This record gives sequence, C-alpha cells and structure tokens, in this order.
Amino acid sequence: MLATLFRLAVVQLQVSSDKANNLSKVRRLVKEAAGQGGKVVLLPECFNSPYGTSFFSKYAEKIPGETTQMLSEVAKENKLHLVGGSIPEEDGGKLYNTCAVFGPEGELILKHRKIHLFDIDVPGKIRFQESETLSPGNSLSTFDTPFCRVGVGICYDMRFAELAQLYNRKGCQLLVYPGAFNMTTGPAHWELLQRARALDNQTYVATASPARDEAASYVAWDCRSTDRRAAAGTTYLADVRQQIPISSQRRDDLYAVTAVQQGSG
Amino acid sequence: MLATLFRLAVVQLQVSSDKANNLSKVRRLVKEAAGQGGKVVLLPECFNSPYGTSFFSKYAEKIPGETTQMLSEVAKENKLHLVGGSIPEEDGGKLYNTCAVFGPEGELILKHRKIHLFDIDVPGKIRFQESETLSPGNSLSTFDTPFCRVGVGICYDMRFAELAQLYNRKGCQLLVYPGAFNMTTGPAHWELLQRARALDNQTYVATASPARDEAASYVAWDCRSTDRRAAAGTTYLADVRQQIPISSQRRDDLYAVTAVQQGSG
Repeated sequence: MLATLFRLAVVQLQVSSDKANNLSKVRRLVKEAAGQGGKVVLLPECFNSPYGTSFFSKYAEKIPGETTQMLSEVAKENKLHLVGGSIPEEDGGKLYNTCAVFGPEGELILKHRKIHLFDIDVPGKIRFQESETLSPGNSLSTFDTPFCRVGVGICYDMRFAELAQLYNRKGCQLLVYPGAFNMTTGPAHWELLQRARALDNQTYVATASPARDEAASYVAWDCRSTDRRAAAGTTYLADVRQQIPISSQRRDDLYAVTAVQQGSG
Repeated sequence: MLATLFRLAVVQLQVSSDKANNLSKVRRLVKEAAGQGGKVVLLPECFNSPYGTSFFSKYAEKIPGETTQMLSEVAKENKLHLVGGSIPEEDGGKLYNTCAVFGPEGELILKHRKIHLFDIDVPGKIRFQESETLSPGNSLSTFDTPFCRVGVGICYDMRFAELAQLYNRKGCQLLVYPGAFNMTTGPAHWELLQRARALDNQTYVATASPARDEAASYVAWDCRSTDRRAAAGTTYLADVRQQIPISSQRRDDLYAVTAVQQGSG
C-alpha cells in the first residue's frame, strides 16, 4: 500500500441553464483547485445542465463531445486527475447519466454510467423518476492514481452498500460519488450514507454537489462532504485497517458479496 | 407485511461482579419494562458477568443453566419476548458469547453465538482479544414475533454489514444487537453503525449496553440506541420501503450478497 499524502479538491459550482457558462465556471474552478494543490478534483453530478428529466435530452452530448473535450483539456493543463461529475450522455439513441474521468495527460480513463437510477416517490416531498428518460449503466468503475485506487459511483449509487463493498474488495481506498441530493433526502441521508460507506469499508469517501439554488426546479442539498480527511493520506487508512481489522475478520465461510457479472455499458 | 405497533424496551443495567445481584436486577427491570408495555425486551451483552477475557470462564454456564433458567421464567411471567443480551456459555469444553432468546411461554427460541469475535488493537486506547478465550458461532439467527421478524447479532457482529444484509434478505424488520462498546469505539462508531444498518436495510435497529461504570476494568460506552422509532410500527417501514424502493432497485444482475453456509454451532 502506498503511503502518500495528496489533496483532493471538491468543486461545488452553481449550475445554471447556460451550458457555456457552466463549462467556463468549471474551467476556472478546476484551475483554482489546482492552484491550491488539488491533485484529484471532483465535480458534481449534472454540472453542465439543470438536473431534471426534461433537460437531459437537450443537454446530452456524445463522449467525446464539447463538455468532455473541455474536461480533457483542463485535466491536462493542470496536470491532475479530474473526476468529471456527470453529464447527460447520448449513445446509440439512449441517454445515460455519465461520469467521465480524465488523467493528467488529458486521457479519458473511464466512463461510469449511473448504475442505480434515481426513482423515488415520497408523497408531498419529492418524486423523481430518472428512468423516464435515462438508461442505467451496467459496469463497476475503478481507476488508479499515483496516490490510491478509486471507485466511482453517481449519487443514488451511494445508497447501495454492495457497490462500495465490491470496490473495497477491489482494493479501493477512496470512493467518489458526484451527487445532487435534494432538500428531502439530503438532510436525512447525504452525510449518513458517506459516513456509513467510509466506516464499513474503511475507505475515504468524497462527494460533490451543485451549490444550492432555491430558484431551480430541482433544489440540490449542497452540504459538503464531511469526511475530508483524504489529506491525511493512506497511512492513516492502513493504521485503521490494522487496528480494527474487519477485512480479515469477515466471515467468508458464512457470507459473500460477489459481482454477478461485469458487463459493459 | 404486518402493520403492527409494539413497544420495544431496552434494559441498560449496571453489571457488577456479583452474578446473583446481576440476575435479580434483570428480573426486576424486565418486570418494570413489561409494566410499561414492553412486548420485546432487550438486555445488554454480558449482563451476568463483568466483560473481560479473565472473567468469561468463571461466569460461564451451560444453556440451560442458572441464568437462562431465570430468563425463561421472566419471559413467561411477563408474557414477552426476551432477547437475553449475552452470557459466557460453556459447551463441549469451549466458551462462546451467546444470546438466548425466549418467548412468552418461557420457551427457548434460539441461541445466537457471537459470530465475529472482538479482536482489536488501537494503540494507547484499547486492546481486546476475545479470541484468546472464546470460540465464534457459525450461524445466523432470526426469529418471528407477532409483530415482526427479528435478526440477532452481538456487539462486534454489528460492524459487518453483510450480516445485516442477509437478515434483510430473510425479511427481518428489526435488528437487535446486545453490545458493550467501549470509550474509544463507542463515541466513534456505536451510533453510526446503528444508523447505517437501519438506513441501508430499511429496518429498525435496537441495541442495549451495560450502564457505564468508570470503576470497571472494561468501561462500556452506554449511549442508548438513537433509533428508537420501533414504536412507530411496521407501517412506517412499509411506507419508507415503498418511497425509496432500494430493495427492488438493487442490481441483482450485477452483485449479490449470499450466505455461503448455514452451519450450526
């Protein structure tokens, strides 16, 4: 295990209906994060478009396309790993909620398509059905940096403990979830889910949300990640994993969390 | 799913080195809980003995034995389900950390032997190695009440998300963990683990700890369970499970949590 310190930066921008404006904001903020020493930079879910099923089609792009071209350039200019939040992606006539990750040479490292679509209905509070317009991804997504291995999920993916458990089994030390929780589930679960994933898997967890905009049709809960100890580095993780060694104490003779299939999509 | 309201009572007693005194306290407190309407009563881990590897052998009993005979009588006298915390159990020359559950006729419903032994070493804070004297159980444990299905774990078992996930798959609506966290891991994780298990599995979670005794060789963190909404009943659970339907949204095509073996012991 590498014993490395690095700075992870979370960019929380106010997302508007003006795509060009959103992209120029990202370009500026990533540069600012790099100037403060950020080596891995995390953007929020749906950062180039308002979040809503009525917007996805209009703002969708191919990958590569305008938005991801900008991400590639910004990653290269600033020599960092950029976890590109998510954008509505169009591919083969279908729409996905997709996170593209770029490396310091501007290379596309992976695309993570949101596996668990956000379909909930809390009467009088919030109803949202991503599945009305989006298709789900079918792949787990991990990548390596010089600092640690990273597992990627998007927003509602965080509710599913199994995904994080499989990332843990694959050796991830950091889980990142670009998100856009809302004013109902945000205060109830946003922080708790992050802390639960971190505790159960003995990993760092980082999330990014759009800034709250009370005038938006979907108001994002913008509480920042409360687990920002990534700067403490992987030595701390190694200590914790040795002191409370739940990974080696798991009863593999009694239960298993397994990947059923590793499809593409 | 039954739509039932019931009162779950958590008994948090100060455990001393005087076994007879511990047992008489339990008898009195369970009766008191019943008088307040408790239909399911939960005792803490290691309630008839101080908690420590040097004590387990001395206080160990067969089951049935003195302590569990008392539990059976108390359950019958008060017509309730009694989750009997845990006691050191001797069987076949081995020692276990065992929870015995009794029904309202005084019948022994199940024995749960702690599956995950508490072996941790946080330098300068706490070192404890249950495995120096105890053997682990090898079985999952669930039982039915007129109100809901219940899954049982003991203390360190709560750290392992897989156990709770399997109980969820088996239809449990309530998870109970008699425990005795300490002054290091207690403030850090006792409440968070309960909330994580409840959130991820959409179940109620109840825990019981011995009362804090600063003079004891092992000082228990006695913060009460913070998720005491069991009185809200199973209708609330059904609503939550419908509103945020993660059980049906799980990607069983991508991952699985499975029981490898259901042994006895």
